[in-house]
Amino acid sequence: MKRMITAMVRDKAGVLSRISSVLNRRQVNIESISVGRTEIAGESRMTIMIRAGNLADIEQVTKQLNKQIDVIKVSDISDEPHLERELALIKVNAPTTIRSEIQAMIDPFRADVVDVSLKTIVVQVAGSDEKVNACIDVLRPYGIKQLARTGITGFSRG
Amino acid sequence: MKRMITAMVRDKAGVLSRISSVLNRRQVNIESISVGRTEIAGESRMTIMIRAGNLADIEQVTKQLNKQIDVIKVSDISDEPHLERELALIKVNAPTTIRSEIQAMIDPFRADVVDVSLKTIVVQVAGSDEKVNACIDVLRPYGIKQLARTGITGFSRG
Repeated sequence: MKRMITAMVRDKAGVLSRISSVLNRRQVNIESISVGRTEIAGESRMTIMIRAGNLADIEQVTKQLNKQIDVIKVSDISDEPHLERELALIKVNAPTTIRSEIQAMIDPFRADVVDVSLKTIVVQVAGSDEKVNACIDVLRPYGIKQLARTGITGFSRG
Repeated sequence: MKRMITAMVRDKAGVLSRISSVLNRRQVNIESISVGRTEIAGESRMTIMIRAGNLADIEQVTKQLNKQIDVIKVSDISDEPHLERELALIKVNAPTTIRSEIQAMIDPFRADVVDVSLKTIVVQVAGSDEKVNACIDVLRPYGIKQLARTGITGFSRG
């Protein structure tokens, strides 16, 4: 099962290292990680998407993460109403003759072309994991040259 | 100086742990990290925004990262033409009477309102670090309740 773990941490050297050690020791399968600043100076929000066999494993992991130095609060928000968003940049083969065709394919995703070269375009799409995956699937037949995904971020709606 | 480091890594347990240990030992000041899947099965792209005193330090860090197990390639792409994008979700105090005012503030950023509650709205904005910061600055006077940033992702244009 896929779970969304958010961690509020202090911006101190070593905190990422300690968190990744715990995940490593517990052999957690990480899908994505994103770490960015928050509105509180000196604090960052980390979002970790993981796959695990059962809820007991996840509970153990969050418990152990909560005990780490400079970790303020770790929560599994998967079962709460929450927002999750990701951004992807997709560089696709796009001879000029098929650019309008590609544009029509990505319009339903509210995706934008953010860069062009002679042979390629770069598509930017933002949304849930599923939406980003669907947009990538639609572009795959044209030939994807490069793909960069930020990983999911988000928070609970409460 | 701020630098953008991209790392292609194998999806193996321990790689994030090793990378964060190197950054920790070198006392690198991390601004953001994003890790997501790529088009190649079993490989992930990591983007690390760091601050460092001088170029020699950065060179040492990338050299050492390149030596780690399951690290395929680490590059400092700051000086190459490149794309960089980030996504942020910003929950702002928004009594119904000022919602149209806020909408007018965020329109120039092509930001969207992606969630509403009785007292708050959630704004989604995507763009460069500077654009995201500018959008946050515009919303700050209303009172930011929660902020989630994915951290930068991107690739060189070449």
